[in-house]
Amino acid sequence: MAEADSTRDDQIRAALQVELDHGARRAAAAGPEVEELWALTSQSMLGGKLVRPRLLLDMVAALATDPASSPSPSDEILRAAAGLEILHGAFLLHDDVIDEDTTRRGCDNVIGHLVRQGGLPATGDGPAVSSPRSVLHFARSAAILAGDLLLTTAHLLLARLGLAPARRLALLDLVEDATLDTVAGEVMDVAFADGIRAAEVEAVLDMTARKTAAYTVELPWRMAAVLAGRPDLDEPLRRAGRHVGLAYQLQDDLLSAFGDPADHGKDPLSDLREGKQTALIVLARGTDAWDRIRRDLGRPDLDAPAADALRAHLAECGARAEVERIIAREHRMAREVLGGCEGMPPAVLGTVDALLERLERRVR
Amino acid sequence: MAEADSTRDDQIRAALQVELDHGARRAAAAGPEVEELWALTSQSMLGGKLVRPRLLLDMVAALATDPASSPSPSDEILRAAAGLEILHGAFLLHDDVIDEDTTRRGCDNVIGHLVRQGGLPATGDGPAVSSPRSVLHFARSAAILAGDLLLTTAHLLLARLGLAPARRLALLDLVEDATLDTVAGEVMDVAFADGIRAAEVEAVLDMTARKTAAYTVELPWRMAAVLAGRPDLDEPLRRAGRHVGLAYQLQDDLLSAFGDPADHGKDPLSDLREGKQTALIVLARGTDAWDRIRRDLGRPDLDAPAADALRAHLAECGARAEVERIIAREHRMAREVLGGCEGMPPAVLGTVDALLERLERRVR
Repeated sequence: MAEADSTRDDQIRAALQVELDHGARRAAAAGPEVEELWALTSQSMLGGKLVRPRLLLDMVAALATDPASSPSPSDEILRAAAGLEILHGAFLLHDDVIDEDTTRRGCDNVIGHLVRQGGLPATGDGPAVSSPRSVLHFARSAAILAGDLLLTTAHLLLARLGLAPARRLALLDLVEDATLDTVAGEVMDVAFADGIRAAEVEAVLDMTARKTAAYTVELPWRMAAVLAGRPDLDEPLRRAGRHVGLAYQLQDDLLSAFGDPADHGKDPLSDLREGKQTALIVLARGTDAWDRIRRDLGRPDLDAPAADALRAHLAECGARAEVERIIAREHRMAREVLGGCEGMPPAVLGTVDALLERLERRVR
Repeated sequence: MAEADSTRDDQIRAALQVELDHGARRAAAAGPEVEELWALTSQSMLGGKLVRPRLLLDMVAALATDPASSPSPSDEILRAAAGLEILHGAFLLHDDVIDEDTTRRGCDNVIGHLVRQGGLPATGDGPAVSSPRSVLHFARSAAILAGDLLLTTAHLLLARLGLAPARRLALLDLVEDATLDTVAGEVMDVAFADGIRAAEVEAVLDMTARKTAAYTVELPWRMAAVLAGRPDLDEPLRRAGRHVGLAYQLQDDLLSAFGDPADHGKDPLSDLREGKQTALIVLARGTDAWDRIRRDLGRPDLDAPAADALRAHLAECGARAEVERIIAREHRMAREVLGGCEGMPPAVLGTVDALLERLERRVR
């Protein structure tokens, strides 16, 4: 990693730590249960890859018309970046509750932690003889509530930024739009998984764009336009962000299915065992290989050899190649939107090209 | 209801409708799933008793030093009142998910609605052969996400109020504190219910104050102090609000156990079938009647005659009288705090006395 990147990440982590510490002081005043829950949640947040804060800071830097005037991001911009990571943490927690996951990045998530310790240990005055079912119910309930805390923290942080009123209100509109889109995508995702809606290719791509692209790339880039004082660039950054964000999630799906867990930290069997309706799976459904794939997909007891066979079918039937084709198409469209936009600073294209190159390397 | 009260309620409902309509337009842009979910959620919100918005408006009116200058609440104050009702809606939804409830106020709640219609009907292109288990999972997941939408809406509404910066920031601090307290109370409540923590009397009263009093009475009254430009009255209103809010929830518990469902709309068996650890139940545990109460409490198949016997035991053992004594004590303490506070406008005492009288009538 370049030195500038490392400095940027340190700045983001420091800003995030300030916000989490602020939350910890307030949580302590609300009693030991929520203090403990906040500590556990904060811990889980500090292990992230900072994708969204990085996208914000890099885009703000690229949009700066006079880089000499602001050699490093202002405190307000760093706080906004921390807010994005906290918003992400809120969505992940509720996603884990909905997916009934107890791990994340190869470790216990908040639910898994709570289950393992049989509840909240801080004030261990309980009868401590709860059934596993009760402990799991408690852990999931606490994760819903911890997600509410993170959502509240992210919103109020953004609402408190010391910005001119027009910029502040514009940021709040963006956060509202991104939250609505994320919720819409998540509802669609659950509807597909639960068989409420038929998972067709176009619908799954739409779900993926809403659930991930909206807050992962669109929101940071649109916030950057506001913070850099370039509201005229909102529309092209929104469109390009949607393309890049969709490609990002499709790559994530490929990594989950085919990548080396040592690199990406995901459970290599999780998506396949869940039978998650990703674009990869939905594309495979239209092929001759589907009968062989369907047999093992979604089996909770799927073992490594069976998973390897599943992966081979998903590659041989052409579904993997088709997803890679869509990723390349989305990257190309993002470049076209930005390249064709009058007044877009050249540094933006350079930044996005470097980003896409890094992203493309992830799946090779 | 007095004419002034009826006008006030109409104003609150109109302000709430404006916010829900605003949300509906944004939700429609995020796709049919979230549009449908928003419509269902809005519908459920409009049936509320407006307890929190009323408390805010009545306190703002009582705090006005010059009532002639503002004969009716400003638009900003009405919007803040609507925000309180939306915040309440968010907490209720997540509470229903956690408690696995499918009804509220005697009707289907959002989860019950979704279950009954087998998912989201608007774009009925699904296979429509989901198992009851999948439909229930979908409904609960959608309720988590709808709660996130309401939480976001409430926060952003308050963040957008056209107030002087100091007042706006003070309001955001109050909302953060109230959310933390509510979450803390809810975590404690679930910990008691799941046997993670021992439910002792003092702990249950603390849980009740945090879970309900913080956002039901404290928050509206403290917001009123900010909006009326009387930050010097924050502390006494906070303390008095905690007392009144605790009493309010204890009364609610009594109503659930002993009240006439035709009056309060609650399921008369729900708390008893769940074996909810209310103060009433915890107080009964220390009495000779406990062996008889324990036998039937928490039985999912509890029938009406057994529930009547349970109620008789809870009254005869003195637990009901003890809860009534605590309610009276909390009311007295609230009056003492407000009466002993220099500079408190006399209208506040009058307003609170009228409120307490109405509340006391609820349980007689």
